[in-house]
Amino acid sequence: MRASIKQHSLSPSRVPSLLKQGKITIAVVGLGRIGLPTAAILARAGARVFGADISAAVVSSVNRGKCKFVDEPGLPKMVREQVKAKRLQATTDIGKAVSRSDISIISVPTPVDDRKSPDYSAVKSASSTIGRSLRRGSIVVVESTVGPGTAENLIQPLIEAESGLKGGRDFGLASAPERSDPGNILANMGTIPRVVGATDSRSLGVVSALYQTALGVKVIQVRNPKTANAIKLTENLFRDVNIAFANEFSLLFEKLGIDAIEVINGCASKYNFLPHYPGAGVGGPCLPSNSYYLISEGVRAGNIPYMIRMAREINDRMPDHVVQLVSEALNEVGKTVRGSKIALLGVAYKPNIKDVQLTPAEGIWRRLAEMGGEMSIHDPMYEGDVVFGTKVKSMDEAVRGTDCIVIATGHREYKSLNLQGLAKMMRSRVLVDGRNLVDPEAAIRAGFAYRGVGRGR
Amino acid sequence: MRASIKQHSLSPSRVPSLLKQGKITIAVVGLGRIGLPTAAILARAGARVFGADISAAVVSSVNRGKCKFVDEPGLPKMVREQVKAKRLQATTDIGKAVSRSDISIISVPTPVDDRKSPDYSAVKSASSTIGRSLRRGSIVVVESTVGPGTAENLIQPLIEAESGLKGGRDFGLASAPERSDPGNILANMGTIPRVVGATDSRSLGVVSALYQTALGVKVIQVRNPKTANAIKLTENLFRDVNIAFANEFSLLFEKLGIDAIEVINGCASKYNFLPHYPGAGVGGPCLPSNSYYLISEGVRAGNIPYMIRMAREINDRMPDHVVQLVSEALNEVGKTVRGSKIALLGVAYKPNIKDVQLTPAEGIWRRLAEMGGEMSIHDPMYEGDVVFGTKVKSMDEAVRGTDCIVIATGHREYKSLNLQGLAKMMRSRVLVDGRNLVDPEAAIRAGFAYRGVGRGR
Repeated sequence: MRASIKQHSLSPSRVPSLLKQGKITIAVVGLGRIGLPTAAILARAGARVFGADISAAVVSSVNRGKCKFVDEPGLPKMVREQVKAKRLQATTDIGKAVSRSDISIISVPTPVDDRKSPDYSAVKSASSTIGRSLRRGSIVVVESTVGPGTAENLIQPLIEAESGLKGGRDFGLASAPERSDPGNILANMGTIPRVVGATDSRSLGVVSALYQTALGVKVIQVRNPKTANAIKLTENLFRDVNIAFANEFSLLFEKLGIDAIEVINGCASKYNFLPHYPGAGVGGPCLPSNSYYLISEGVRAGNIPYMIRMAREINDRMPDHVVQLVSEALNEVGKTVRGSKIALLGVAYKPNIKDVQLTPAEGIWRRLAEMGGEMSIHDPMYEGDVVFGTKVKSMDEAVRGTDCIVIATGHREYKSLNLQGLAKMMRSRVLVDGRNLVDPEAAIRAGFAYRGVGRGR
Repeated sequence: MRASIKQHSLSPSRVPSLLKQGKITIAVVGLGRIGLPTAAILARAGARVFGADISAAVVSSVNRGKCKFVDEPGLPKMVREQVKAKRLQATTDIGKAVSRSDISIISVPTPVDDRKSPDYSAVKSASSTIGRSLRRGSIVVVESTVGPGTAENLIQPLIEAESGLKGGRDFGLASAPERSDPGNILANMGTIPRVVGATDSRSLGVVSALYQTALGVKVIQVRNPKTANAIKLTENLFRDVNIAFANEFSLLFEKLGIDAIEVINGCASKYNFLPHYPGAGVGGPCLPSNSYYLISEGVRAGNIPYMIRMAREINDRMPDHVVQLVSEALNEVGKTVRGSKIALLGVAYKPNIKDVQLTPAEGIWRRLAEMGGEMSIHDPMYEGDVVFGTKVKSMDEAVRGTDCIVIATGHREYKSLNLQGLAKMMRSRVLVDGRNLVDPEAAIRAGFAYRGVGRGR
């Protein structure tokens, strides 16, 4: 009963002072690229935070003050400090963490399976575990990206079934999706407004006050959890659709002898245009999956968003296009992929980050290898590591003696390549730029047979 | 020969002073919503301008100082002044205008036919006419929106065939597409950078200097005419695709009980999102046609941009969706379209403009009339005129005694409708908002059976 009384005293207006006094306890379920910074930021704001994860290795690492996301500026330091200050404590005992907490935040991965159906198994498991330990009066917050309706129709019933409590009455349920960009998580969390929708007004108020106080950001309250989740999906789908649009017209412009980059930069001079660029494909934990969460709801509702699905497929085919450009460029110097030595520059799915989840580089690498290319790999974030079953070399080692360079990731290191120097190290001079980093004229001047996505001539 | 000597003296650096001294003569071919302001602005900058049009009525009207585009702020006054100052003179003799001019600007309509193929007949006719009268050394500028390659592969050969002159050597060809928004043409022409691509460097320089001096805008020089035309198309397609994206997810959100407008406004709080809104459809002389110019080039090149085509079709189906919402909303009060009196608010294709080219309102009106609805029409820009074969009434006359209001255009007058007042005048209270102008709660409070595009509940 004591818990319940304490809980009911957690009103929105008291959140700032209770947080500062260390009187709010929060369980963050899932210590990945979103969960860990969320836990650390809440701890820094004064909360007592249990970081719960099913991985004993992750928990032990965090409890030693370690953070594996070395590509997130400021995060390793913050984790170290909050663990040292004993405000952040990791545990594999999710149930215990939840049972002691006023608020439980679900921050587990939501991938898609190999048939592109949302894989909510981690969400389901977390929901059931939370349900078994949830105190009356506490609040569950969904930070994971899920389809609209998943909070109301999947998570809430699971919690209710295990807890015997009624959502919106005995416990609150809110969606407050993270909207951050990997590689920039801490900065984004502290600036991008947080969207919050909840089943009841107290939860809406408390969760809003929590994020506002702890993150220092504006909170946008929406009418229910599904609207909050729809916002998160829609803003990511906007990017996916617009990148697909850029990819689609770029492939046509290649055929028409038009440089798509020149076109996009020209369009950008109009007040109502937002530039997106073509490239070797779209990867990561978000964009390649998010469309399918919405499509899945569309299938259920008998209203499939075909254009959004087509956008996804256009982006999925870009690695194949890069492979085609490699064939064409090698052909220009009288070579085939088979027998050519090819250096793949970049394995990460996006610039300046150490993450290969659904990276387009893998499809390029695999296809070229299947075709008989002798592959070497470089990536500044992975030097010395094994990726795609291959050791990632230094730039020099990766490029020396090869026939062809393929840029698959827009890392900052590749923006100022010494083309003359590279050319001297190579057996043949072929350059395929999947990220539009290299000036085509400069590549041609350095003697390269050059191809770039969208760069018709 | 004199003309030729004079022409060759028209160098980029001399354009500003020659323009001021009234020593540059320009033919603007086509006096429509783009051609007329172009002619007037060039005249104001000091050029001697022949406004050439095949319509004797248009020519006579302009020569009397009249301007039919009363919805273009500042334009009627500017036309009146430039005609009075005798710097702008209209003529039906296109050949004579061209023969006396240093620069000829093509500004004729480029619609699509009923099979959605670009109809370049006006461009072809203008090109041939220009070719028959073109002086050696003069420059032809394409302002009309055309597919990339049309300037090089259609317009230039037609001029060459008629003139016996060689493009890029004996005459220059430039594309400098207008990028203005109807209803805001003068303001846009004076602020949006002008993109210029040409066949030769002198033409590029002269045309750039002309637009820079006369419009006072930044000029973006691109490598050839087709790139300039690609830029114009791409920025319009960006809008069409993004409106289609909004329409597609909005239809799904209606089914999922989510308010798409709340979602879009939430997304707009993220730094990399640009809001576009769902609605009753996309009309006008540009967006419904522009995609097909690019698709047509895609068909020719064996690379059809299917997503762009799908976007177009999604937008084309929105009037049908509005009709469906009318049926549903009437059904809520026990009525069918047949036998209902329906007031259509707005016939123009966009807000605050007097233009019904390819307006979505027409499809809504026609379909509801076919289904047996007794239609009345209001539009503040057309009061007293006949549109769709029907007299446009005052608001009171249009709405009194009806069962249903359908908002088809986002005119400013409709943003502050007196819902209580309208409700009292009506026989039944049904409101379908195709432009998201009315607050759904306010409509429901006023007793309306309400539907809005994308507004799931």
